[in-house]
Amino acid sequence: MEFTAQQIAEALQGTVEGDATTTVSTLSKIEEGAPGSLSFLANPAYEKYIYETHASIVIVNNDFKPEKKVSATLIRVNDAYMAFAQLLELYQQSKPQKTGISPKAHIAQTAKVGSNVYIGEFVVIGEHSEIGDNCKIYPNTTIGDKVTIGNETTLFAGVKVYEDCVIGNECTLHAGVVIGSDGFGFAPQQDADFKKVPQIGNVVLEDRVEIGANTVIDRATMGSTIIKRGVKLDNLIQIAHNVVIGENTVIAAQTGIAGSTKIGKNCMFGGQVGIIGHLTIADEVKIAAQSGIGKSITEKGAIVEGSPAFNARDFQKSYIYYRKLDSLVKRINNLEHQLKNKM
Amino acid sequence: MEFTAQQIAEALQGTVEGDATTTVSTLSKIEEGAPGSLSFLANPAYEKYIYETHASIVIVNNDFKPEKKVSATLIRVNDAYMAFAQLLELYQQSKPQKTGISPKAHIAQTAKVGSNVYIGEFVVIGEHSEIGDNCKIYPNTTIGDKVTIGNETTLFAGVKVYEDCVIGNECTLHAGVVIGSDGFGFAPQQDADFKKVPQIGNVVLEDRVEIGANTVIDRATMGSTIIKRGVKLDNLIQIAHNVVIGENTVIAAQTGIAGSTKIGKNCMFGGQVGIIGHLTIADEVKIAAQSGIGKSITEKGAIVEGSPAFNARDFQKSYIYYRKLDSLVKRINNLEHQLKNKM
Amino acid sequence: MEFTAQQIAEALQGTVEGDATTTVSTLSKIEEGAPGSLSFLANPAYEKYIYETHASIVIVNNDFKPEKKVSATLIRVNDAYMAFAQLLELYQQSKPQKTGISPKAHIAQTAKVGSNVYIGEFVVIGEHSEIGDNCKIYPNTTIGDKVTIGNETTLFAGVKVYEDCVIGNECTLHAGVVIGSDGFGFAPQQDADFKKVPQIGNVVLEDRVEIGANTVIDRATMGSTIIKRGVKLDNLIQIAHNVVIGENTVIAAQTGIAGSTKIGKNCMFGGQVGIIGHLTIADEVKIAAQSGIGKSITEKGAIVEGSPAFNARDFQKSYIYYRKLDSLVKRINNLEHQLKNKM
Repeated sequence: MEFTAQQIAEALQGTVEGDATTTVSTLSKIEEGAPGSLSFLANPAYEKYIYETHASIVIVNNDFKPEKKVSATLIRVNDAYMAFAQLLELYQQSKPQKTGISPKAHIAQTAKVGSNVYIGEFVVIGEHSEIGDNCKIYPNTTIGDKVTIGNETTLFAGVKVYEDCVIGNECTLHAGVVIGSDGFGFAPQQDADFKKVPQIGNVVLEDRVEIGANTVIDRATMGSTIIKRGVKLDNLIQIAHNVVIGENTVIAAQTGIAGSTKIGKNCMFGGQVGIIGHLTIADEVKIAAQSGIGKSITEKGAIVEGSPAFNARDFQKSYIYYRKLDSLVKRINNLEHQLKNKM
Repeated sequence: MEFTAQQIAEALQGTVEGDATTTVSTLSKIEEGAPGSLSFLANPAYEKYIYETHASIVIVNNDFKPEKKVSATLIRVNDAYMAFAQLLELYQQSKPQKTGISPKAHIAQTAKVGSNVYIGEFVVIGEHSEIGDNCKIYPNTTIGDKVTIGNETTLFAGVKVYEDCVIGNECTLHAGVVIGSDGFGFAPQQDADFKKVPQIGNVVLEDRVEIGANTVIDRATMGSTIIKRGVKLDNLIQIAHNVVIGENTVIAAQTGIAGSTKIGKNCMFGGQVGIIGHLTIADEVKIAAQSGIGKSITEKGAIVEGSPAFNARDFQKSYIYYRKLDSLVKRINNLEHQLKNKM
Repeated sequence: MEFTAQQIAEALQGTVEGDATTTVSTLSKIEEGAPGSLSFLANPAYEKYIYETHASIVIVNNDFKPEKKVSATLIRVNDAYMAFAQLLELYQQSKPQKTGISPKAHIAQTAKVGSNVYIGEFVVIGEHSEIGDNCKIYPNTTIGDKVTIGNETTLFAGVKVYEDCVIGNECTLHAGVVIGSDGFGFAPQQDADFKKVPQIGNVVLEDRVEIGANTVIDRATMGSTIIKRGVKLDNLIQIAHNVVIGENTVIAAQTGIAGSTKIGKNCMFGGQVGIIGHLTIADEVKIAAQSGIGKSITEKGAIVEGSPAFNARDFQKSYIYYRKLDSLVKRINNLEHQLKNKM
């Protein structure tokens, strides 16, 4: 589908500057803009690209003053970023949506499926499970017995949900996600062998949770592993048994959280962070990528770094000296030498 | 199903203290105990919870002496933890078990399947593969050609086993596990391109091995990647080609072991550990989470930490000073200043 | 199949030393060589094994001079490693190849499939997707709509490719790989909630790319995440949205690369490396395992280590002093003490 600058400006309540009949059919980043695409400029750091871009239309803030010639047609709006995000969403929604239940899916007779769902080929929905309205379940996904999934939730291809787990409304689980695998619990025996501790709990994802591809969330030993409303987990993350993650916490890829640790709300963790078990992390804590957390963090909003982690500013200070440890050693050598000579 | 305190006490050869007619239908942690659940107290650190718990029944050691009023019915036994573990297992076993071979599974004509198995929908079992008795294979799992699986082994949903691999008895492979993918072997060519080195070996899992969700074990270049009896691997672990892991070694999530490294028995590795290739790690070695192992560890029972790792106690000592490197620098500044003034 | 030393020597244009009628049916490493297998000796570090090996035939370089008795039959060639690699490949090619399209696969009516392909059971190929000639697609793999796959490409079991992605010729994707999941993009809202940023781009894998098991490559927010010709990615790697990886770069397992970072060509990264977003890494850069990259690397061929990483040689120097920080502290204590006594 093609739109003119005029049509888009009207939709965004903006004003056109340049050729109002210019048409676009896709969206692009300003630094990669190709003819026929619409881009935006919000961050002043990217201003240089507006003079070079091949995008046909660029959305800018009302107060943008070009310093050079701009060849693209401009659309001026109050907030270029928000206007562009709106268009992104419209673009996404305009794509054809998957619908219908494939006759090649296997839905247990005791399962209940809501209205207006998509269920792809080779999906399995177990006994007594319930799928809400407007859900999309892509091919080769396996949903165990007695699983409950809310409305408007999407499970991409090859997701595996073990029995008894609960998934809320408006959740998105990307391909390969595993929900409800056994917690890693083994009781040591006298002969150095280990005996498996049965894991009889489940996993609960509240509403608006998004889980990245191939991330794993283990079921609780007893009770529930709980991912609260609005949490966003990136790809390849490990969440162990009985962990609780607070509302709107965002965690980057390949982070691991060990058993029974409780994470506060509105936290932000970088990638490849490791957190050991049985800790409590306060609200709004920020953890730098690759950090290792070995004890609880009680200070709300703390920012930590390192393995083991401590205050990020202190870590960075120490690291600066670490990089020059050899010069410190030389200075100590020097001092010893001088002192010896004086004796 | 509901049980009375009296019935449970008889099963455990314990004695009831309080209302013997109290009934429970599930198990819980003492700190999360809800009415109708049975819990236990073994670790004295959790004693405070017994005075607050809403669990209806709590199993305690014979020598437990409450310091305050306990509202739950108590069952006294010799070893509260072991008694509870027994109940957990009974609870697990009382759940309905999956049985039967789905007509929607694909079993090659040359494959052999044992008795009393569960094979779920859209499972593929390749040519000349053999599945033992009492195995459970959950939906959407793919087993390649010439794979051998012992008795009493469970493969959860979406497991992928490449051809020629061997899996023992009483193993558990969680959802998304990959067994037998190619080792990462490429021979550099003159033009900076790489030529793939064919990986003609396999993977052998001995008996009683448990593998966590989305963990990957590569096949050997030649010979076998071997995971020995009783090994427990957590989720998202990487085991490269030709690695050997000794009996009853336990490895936490997201650890990676590079090609041809040999790990001893009864080792315990934390999460996110990395071990480079062609090393030998002695028996009973413990490696702290996030450590990096760059050379062989020959000392049995060594405990190491850091990246690169060394003796954990020494690492921790160094780390204490690392945290205050700036104060060391100030002291050196000071010394230099003093010495200068004296000259 | 069995071959004699004579037959193999003729194929490799080598000469037999010992019993030319010795037969072998498989290949082995020299240190694990069993009777009936053929091995090779190229690296002098492994010479000791040739005097102990049970391999029936060993390929050696023409200039190899045994210092002790060798019981195996030798085949002398110009380059023992290359000759052996040739045999490995012949061995691999001699295995029966999967062929044909399973009637249990689901191929959308609008999809196009090339000639001489293997498509396994429960594979899904979406609407308007195109699969080239000689491709192999193993069971339970899901290919979304409008995906293009070149010729001679293999997707092992349980791979998930999202819509609109492009995969080149001669690529290999191992089991559980995810291509095209959403980038991790969320715009913070006033109420601490996050709003998903639609991810409308795709992933492009050029020719001769190999991707390890359970690795994830996110689609671009707009435009493409691009993995260039000849790149080799190991298992469990995370590649975020809009990343570009240059030709023939090789990355070991469990490494993660954050959004929009551009990696040069011919780079080599160890395992568990983390690279933050929006960086540029020059060509031929080497990064040690577990390093963390927090800023761009502009120097071609740089070798870095540490978290955050810097010049590897400097890192190692600092690390030596780090290990003995307590002795440095003692020397400072000592200096302070001496100086005090002199005042």
